[in-house]
Amino acid sequence: MKLIATGLATVLALTAFHAEAAPKKAPVSASGALASPMPVEDQAAALRDAALTANGAYDFLSELTTRFGPRPAGSDSEKRAAEWSAMRLKELGFQNVHIESFPLHVWARGGPETIAITGEFAQPLVGVSLGGSTAGEVEAEAVMFDTYREFLDSKADVAGKIVVILQPMAKASNGSGYGRMSGTVRGKGQLEAQKRGAVGYVMRSLSTDNNRFAHAGASAWTDGKGIPAMAISAPDVSQLSRIKVLQKAGKGGPVRISMKTTGQFLGLKTSQNVVADLVGSEHPEQVIVVGGHLDSWDLGTGAIDDGAGVAITMAAAKVMMDQGVKPKRTIRVVFWGSEEVSQPAGDTTDTGGGAFREAHKSELSNYVAHAESDFGADKLNNFALLPTDDASFVTKLSNLLYPLGIYYDDKATPNGGEDSGAMNGFVPAFDLNQDGYRYFDTHHTANDTFDRIDPQQLNQNVAAYTATLWLMANTDVRFKLPPKEAH
Amino acid sequence: MKLIATGLATVLALTAFHAEAAPKKAPVSASGALASPMPVEDQAAALRDAALTANGAYDFLSELTTRFGPRPAGSDSEKRAAEWSAMRLKELGFQNVHIESFPLHVWARGGPETIAITGEFAQPLVGVSLGGSTAGEVEAEAVMFDTYREFLDSKADVAGKIVVILQPMAKASNGSGYGRMSGTVRGKGQLEAQKRGAVGYVMRSLSTDNNRFAHAGASAWTDGKGIPAMAISAPDVSQLSRIKVLQKAGKGGPVRISMKTTGQFLGLKTSQNVVADLVGSEHPEQVIVVGGHLDSWDLGTGAIDDGAGVAITMAAAKVMMDQGVKPKRTIRVVFWGSEEVSQPAGDTTDTGGGAFREAHKSELSNYVAHAESDFGADKLNNFALLPTDDASFVTKLSNLLYPLGIYYDDKATPNGGEDSGAMNGFVPAFDLNQDGYRYFDTHHTANDTFDRIDPQQLNQNVAAYTATLWLMANTDVRFKLPPKEAH
Repeated sequence: MKLIATGLATVLALTAFHAEAAPKKAPVSASGALASPMPVEDQAAALRDAALTANGAYDFLSELTTRFGPRPAGSDSEKRAAEWSAMRLKELGFQNVHIESFPLHVWARGGPETIAITGEFAQPLVGVSLGGSTAGEVEAEAVMFDTYREFLDSKADVAGKIVVILQPMAKASNGSGYGRMSGTVRGKGQLEAQKRGAVGYVMRSLSTDNNRFAHAGASAWTDGKGIPAMAISAPDVSQLSRIKVLQKAGKGGPVRISMKTTGQFLGLKTSQNVVADLVGSEHPEQVIVVGGHLDSWDLGTGAIDDGAGVAITMAAAKVMMDQGVKPKRTIRVVFWGSEEVSQPAGDTTDTGGGAFREAHKSELSNYVAHAESDFGADKLNNFALLPTDDASFVTKLSNLLYPLGIYYDDKATPNGGEDSGAMNGFVPAFDLNQDGYRYFDTHHTANDTFDRIDPQQLNQNVAAYTATLWLMANTDVRFKLPPKEAH
Repeated sequence: MKLIATGLATVLALTAFHAEAAPKKAPVSASGALASPMPVEDQAAALRDAALTANGAYDFLSELTTRFGPRPAGSDSEKRAAEWSAMRLKELGFQNVHIESFPLHVWARGGPETIAITGEFAQPLVGVSLGGSTAGEVEAEAVMFDTYREFLDSKADVAGKIVVILQPMAKASNGSGYGRMSGTVRGKGQLEAQKRGAVGYVMRSLSTDNNRFAHAGASAWTDGKGIPAMAISAPDVSQLSRIKVLQKAGKGGPVRISMKTTGQFLGLKTSQNVVADLVGSEHPEQVIVVGGHLDSWDLGTGAIDDGAGVAITMAAAKVMMDQGVKPKRTIRVVFWGSEEVSQPAGDTTDTGGGAFREAHKSELSNYVAHAESDFGADKLNNFALLPTDDASFVTKLSNLLYPLGIYYDDKATPNGGEDSGAMNGFVPAFDLNQDGYRYFDTHHTANDTFDRIDPQQLNQNVAAYTATLWLMANTDVRFKLPPKEAH
């Protein structure tokens, strides 16, 4: 699919921005900031169009995922990726590049972990432990529930048995099927099962595909005292559902499942955020924070989740540097650490975003906005903003993004991401939302690799961030915090 | 995609065959054979159209793959699947249903097996041992070759190192990319590497997709004295190729790989063919043999390879039984055992087909033809026949199959399958060839499950087999063996 909507103006020759627009009409100032005669929205449009062919995100993401593979929160790989990223960001011309460490309770899968049907329908299944769950080995009869609700409402005696939730996940471009299940079926299901005496917990992966991949993901913090808890692939759930049909027809006895999980807590270690600035030429203290998270699940190489996010946001700032221009306000790119984790209550800040909020609390009142790209690298689809007194801002931004096929969602309230959202209440969020229709096909699987990335769609993301950031950084726009969300 | 080509006549009401055509014009004989007034090609067309909505193959394949999962050659699962199949075939009305056992050297993966990059680019890879290879554990520098030819021609010193072949596989609807590599890169590569002192062998999976599945497959019989030999997924090869680019740019040192393989020979055991007849009403000794193979690789549940083949051919005969008609010649359905294996020279017949040929040698001169469905369950695309003196046969069969979108390939020489092909030289082969464009996307992977099956395309397969078998079984057609192929 070609990315660019038919309505997009021909990519502006950059000479129009530099040689003609800048030197003739508006000499670039000593600080590198664009002189004023060229309207800021025209500058943003020219940068946007330059981004469409710059490939900076693609190249960075390629090297990041190739060099480090999976980057689990708190791992050596995440740390080395952070150090390499800091080095690259300096090479690329970012300023104030540094790493901010913070404490984290680390969980690791260990392995090998296994799950299989035993007895009459004996066969191996494809499954992975839920993040934060407990090591153990068990073999017991399975009690299958079509939905999580059915399990909760059921009076079935599951003591000494393995609870299996067959509930599928809805596929939607805004990912709405995920949030309804990640905090419940995946987040709490194993605790509910354990309460009722179950010795194991199995759920269908939160997947919108039917390829045979198990999807990892954070669950409850079990402190090593839980029951084996795993997510199995969608085809394996289809298999169990067919067995259920045979059982109902009197053609099969009970299903028994054996599970071996190996997940362990490794103790309190550290993770880190990588922080890099494109310092504002006029208002350096007025900061716009964007980024993605550098950590990933351990099965794939974290390309769509979320190497893409760090690459997109970094590349947007790089486009400005490559064009030799500087924003008036500071654009701060943060590669967040430890997004993919559950933490016990207490001595950590939960995510890299929380650590950043605490470390930078005194500065936050000057910050303009924050956003996080953490929904893959397919085409951006819409954007959302908090209210602003600058009535022209939305119009200008819409005009910049419509040609990329991105609409303004005036009904949505932006949240930022899992990390940057830690600043909600202090700093206004804005959202640029990808078309996530494919996202949960490979999310948290071994199949989340660089092969999933479409370079044209990735460039569209960079172009949109570039235009948005330039407009925010070169106007006086301020957004209003939602009144109830203040901490 | 709708299956039926626009040219297909509206499915004939079966009453036209039974109530009107048969009872009024052509009473069904006492033996159940159709009386002659209705032309055999019209009978075949009516049966063909009944098959398009019968779903017998889909139901059988569903239960087979659900009950038994993977069915490795010589395993308990393969044996139980054979016994269950025999029971089901009797229930469905087949005659002379029995199991024929034969000896087989059995290899099993064991496990868990692992492969990973260590050192600078440390990360786990997704790989599987090649069938018939040897257990071992090794960590060494990798020497990467873009093609197998490059490795063979190279004078590179690979002693003490791991040979890695990055060569991709071509994607084609006739599967032509596979045969060029299965016997060489996969079949002999590990022996060539071992000859030159290598301590491990890694190849790109014979895959036409870029999902992160490793593809299993038979390699050389190493007798437990080989070197660790594995196939890694296509995305992992892309990863290694990107590392190679970094190395060439001076941005990376040597790649080291660690491998642990666990494949073992379990000794001389048995496998089995399941044989079932629809006995001919006039010429029972004139046999047409069709079938698929019941064994599968151990990673998936063997739906496309080759549960589909047994289901399609069985269901074609079932359509005739369900319509209450009997062929004049015998249609014999064989569920072959042990297609997916390499065997040492000597005391076995290699495949179920070889065992069948030896056990039935005295009957073979009366056999009319053989075919094997072993290329998945997507739409049949073309057919091939050996020469016949009955000039009208090809025309009649073409007329029956064109409406299903199947053309006559007059350039091709039919071979049958890996199993039924053991009868070549004794019994003429015929081929009905699927569109195999997707086949090697999931072939021999964990993803070969029932989810890959499209019921409409599966029914098209059954319809074509039904029409073809009815025409062959109710005419006097004989095909000529290729002169040079006689044993």
